[in-house]
Amino acid sequence: MIGQALHMGDELHNRNKAATALFARAIAPALVEGDNRNGRVVGEIFRYLAETDVFFLNLSMAASKAALDAAAGIEGSSVVIAMARNGTDIGIRTSGTGDAWFTAPAPAIDGLYFPGYGPDDANPDLGDSAITETGGLGAFALAAAPAITQFIGGTPEMGRQVTEEMYGITLGEHPRYTIPALDYRGTPVGIDLVKVARSRVTPMLDTGIAHKEPGIGQIGAGIVRVPIEPFDAALLALADTP
Amino acid sequence: MIGQALHMGDELHNRNKAATALFARAIAPALVEGDNRNGRVVGEIFRYLAETDVFFLNLSMAASKAALDAAAGIEGSSVVIAMARNGTDIGIRTSGTGDAWFTAPAPAIDGLYFPGYGPDDANPDLGDSAITETGGLGAFALAAAPAITQFIGGTPEMGRQVTEEMYGITLGEHPRYTIPALDYRGTPVGIDLVKVARSRVTPMLDTGIAHKEPGIGQIGAGIVRVPIEPFDAALLALADTP
Repeated sequence: MIGQALHMGDELHNRNKAATALFARAIAPALVEGDNRNGRVVGEIFRYLAETDVFFLNLSMAASKAALDAAAGIEGSSVVIAMARNGTDIGIRTSGTGDAWFTAPAPAIDGLYFPGYGPDDANPDLGDSAITETGGLGAFALAAAPAITQFIGGTPEMGRQVTEEMYGITLGEHPRYTIPALDYRGTPVGIDLVKVARSRVTPMLDTGIAHKEPGIGQIGAGIVRVPIEPFDAALLALADTP
Repeated sequence: MIGQALHMGDELHNRNKAATALFARAIAPALVEGDNRNGRVVGEIFRYLAETDVFFLNLSMAASKAALDAAAGIEGSSVVIAMARNGTDIGIRTSGTGDAWFTAPAPAIDGLYFPGYGPDDANPDLGDSAITETGGLGAFALAAAPAITQFIGGTPEMGRQVTEEMYGITLGEHPRYTIPALDYRGTPVGIDLVKVARSRVTPMLDTGIAHKEPGIGQIGAGIVRVPIEPFDAALLALADTP
């Protein structure tokens, strides 16, 4: 379903419109046939899915996490297996360095704001969803999602450039996640500490912008580059691993 | 919904995957809440929609026909308001020439075949669905649908070239149907007999390939160029209109 949605303009982080619609269409028969005693509840589920384009992000995050966990704990491996932000710091974990997190202050996001909000209202970058970029989705698949620039700013050409740049810091191309606009090339996947350290290019994330006051929620969306310090620190730690 | 689907890789003639999913998601709450006495029937509807990516073609054809009918019967107008094929002939109607059809033999289609079939099995081009191209969708919106080349052959770059070429024979750009990959340019719409006659460029269609024996149905999909004779004939008839 993720593979199909990449062919339908989603990058599965900030844009999940196609995946959510495919998911709703796929589960509809079973939902209806599984319990036809209460049409109102099932109707509410469908209404929620119809109004919540971002729903599938829950599944794309889980799929990314499951795939990356399979790459954890490999001795000497310089592959990044998680990136996450808590609103204060951004951190990464790598395959060869166990449970350690390598962190830096969370950066500000360059993006578009919902009406009535601006950069002064924004919290630094926040959330677990950068696991999608770590798994070859999100900004790494931005070339698949030209329409997302209406939401995060920039141009479709910028999306293409971001994906192209990420091929330079990854070890492989995803065998199942392909991008029609790049002649079905697989998305860049497997961020490599060594390639990051040599090129000084770090991962891009496309992400939501949260208000700095709790309870208000999302006020925009945009793009952000991960600082390089965690990658340098992780590479040094990997070199020190016995 | 058509505008959204164009941002999700559909061109609404041979590829309606996104539009069908959006449609199923949109009608799901009402379908369930409207009649919860018979979950089995509603389940069958959802299963049909989940398995029938082409379903929305019925709606995109109707929407195109309704839009084009509004342009019919304008004195002196050289705009094409219908293109259709019956498996033997291909015909066009224009705004300024009343109910007359201008025809030529239906061409063969250059495309991909389902396993077990080939060009010898194919009928010449067939069907009403070229109304979508006439209304600015289908091959005219091919740049919006890079993944369709897996179905009709060619490359995503070819899709872009087809759409670019169609701007040369149309009078306008659709205000609601936009293509992210072309920086949200509107699709080419309003085929103009004069521009066709001067450039000798005729419309492209992307279309299904039907078996020449009745009852077998679709055996492939591809792309075809409309012959120029009907356009020349229509322009001469328009010039003769009192």
